[in-house]
Amino acid sequence: MHSNPNYAYVRGQVVPLDQAFLHISDLAIQRGYGVFDYFRVHNGRPVFLDDYLMRLQESAKALHMEVPLSDEELKEVILDIISKNDIPVSGIKMILTGGYSANGYDPAEPSLVILQQPMALPSSELVEKGIKIITHDYVREVPRAKTINYTMGIRLIDEIRQQGAHDVLYERNGVVTEFPRCNLFIVKHDDTVITPAENVLLGVTRKNVLALADQKYKAVEGEVTVEDIYQAKEVFLTSTTKRILPIVQVNDQVIGSGKPGAVTLDLLQALIKLEEAYFSLAV
Amino acid sequence: MHSNPNYAYVRGQVVPLDQAFLHISDLAIQRGYGVFDYFRVHNGRPVFLDDYLMRLQESAKALHMEVPLSDEELKEVILDIISKNDIPVSGIKMILTGGYSANGYDPAEPSLVILQQPMALPSSELVEKGIKIITHDYVREVPRAKTINYTMGIRLIDEIRQQGAHDVLYERNGVVTEFPRCNLFIVKHDDTVITPAENVLLGVTRKNVLALADQKYKAVEGEVTVEDIYQAKEVFLTSTTKRILPIVQVNDQVIGSGKPGAVTLDLLQALIKLEEAYFSLAV
Repeated sequence: MHSNPNYAYVRGQVVPLDQAFLHISDLAIQRGYGVFDYFRVHNGRPVFLDDYLMRLQESAKALHMEVPLSDEELKEVILDIISKNDIPVSGIKMILTGGYSANGYDPAEPSLVILQQPMALPSSELVEKGIKIITHDYVREVPRAKTINYTMGIRLIDEIRQQGAHDVLYERNGVVTEFPRCNLFIVKHDDTVITPAENVLLGVTRKNVLALADQKYKAVEGEVTVEDIYQAKEVFLTSTTKRILPIVQVNDQVIGSGKPGAVTLDLLQALIKLEEAYFSLAV
Repeated sequence: MHSNPNYAYVRGQVVPLDQAFLHISDLAIQRGYGVFDYFRVHNGRPVFLDDYLMRLQESAKALHMEVPLSDEELKEVILDIISKNDIPVSGIKMILTGGYSANGYDPAEPSLVILQQPMALPSSELVEKGIKIITHDYVREVPRAKTINYTMGIRLIDEIRQQGAHDVLYERNGVVTEFPRCNLFIVKHDDTVITPAENVLLGVTRKNVLALADQKYKAVEGEVTVEDIYQAKEVFLTSTTKRILPIVQVNDQVIGSGKPGAVTLDLLQALIKLEEAYFSLAV
């Protein structure tokens, strides 16, 4: 049984989660200023960790911040937290904020926060059934950076629920980009696999799925329109916590047969194998 | 001399500022999700408080949150903090966040934070000299709500400094809207006073200046382009902490004579008189 407290890292110290606080002068609280990243932990081991650490560095740079720990130091803290906690299937979030600002606007020494939380991959029922999504007019402000700004995504939670949908896809002028927390892929009738190239976060799962698709199909990063989606043979999303999730309805439009497609499910199996291969290689 | 600690209000309790913390599960830290408002305190008395309380309510509504205190209860807390602290010329910020989220995404009971900080109005030297501003392509996501998302404004601090400017004006496709924390006004050669109508926060100082301008000049809310600014006789900004600040250069373009204009300075005097009248009326 799991009886230890959960531990988190806050500004240089590992503390029990229930004592993990930031001062109200922190620029996340004052101005929503921060970036983060999030990776899965499987059987106590981080999955594709180097990719996520590299992206955290890039997000920090885009907001003119510096991660106060080197990648090696970050890994030490992460492994320390994993060993102190006991959450075999979980996710670890690293948040980097603008720090304790003297005037509530100018950035200070960044605050680094690391926390581990249980997570569940999508159920096999959900994967077999597929999901409905809706679309909404929006482009993220700094698409290549994983900022903490989810004002739009969280504002839309109620509307997603009211429409009986599972997630919302951002589009502007008919060109789609990404979900608040996932990337989009479509499969054309000639089995070409396409994901939006512009104004998206460069997801780690997106990168892996592109590489896998390229081995068996044709894989392309390019423009995808709402109309392309309606005409697609298959549609799916990718993310760290969802892997690959089939999309069978977009707004009022049923996609293809209305069931998860063969290419989608094939890529999901390939992705699971890739994760297994990663673990057999990792020390 | 001022020797008491500064007090803040955090989730139902008045605590010394150095003990004012939010848990890292708060949705401001996890997702930058929150709204705020900010008013001046002059000789220990809030300035135009009802306007700011009304706007906080509207911002909260736009993000589907409820302020946990009634306006009367808010006023009680505010007066309590003012009397405990001793900062005659200051600002009070009220921040309302998405609360302590169980999964780091879904909103919970909102967290309300209230803090008081010293502030200084612009020096008379700055008002006499006027400021340079630059422009940048951006429109705020939920312009009518005062969200805590200042990702763009804070990212631009370095560029403002490098350009020897004082602030940045947002524009898109040549149409200007607002500054990160101020509204814009221009004065045409026929003394018409114009401020952008669309995609701006409805500033309290903006509202007061519009009313004052309407008494002596022609006051209009309408579209303002970058070209309109370059051709204007006078340009100025308004905000709670700046009142009215003349703008004498926009990017490389000198405005009018390159000095603060007569209408601008006239409106500033009228605004100061309005504040005095407010205090002589307020209990």
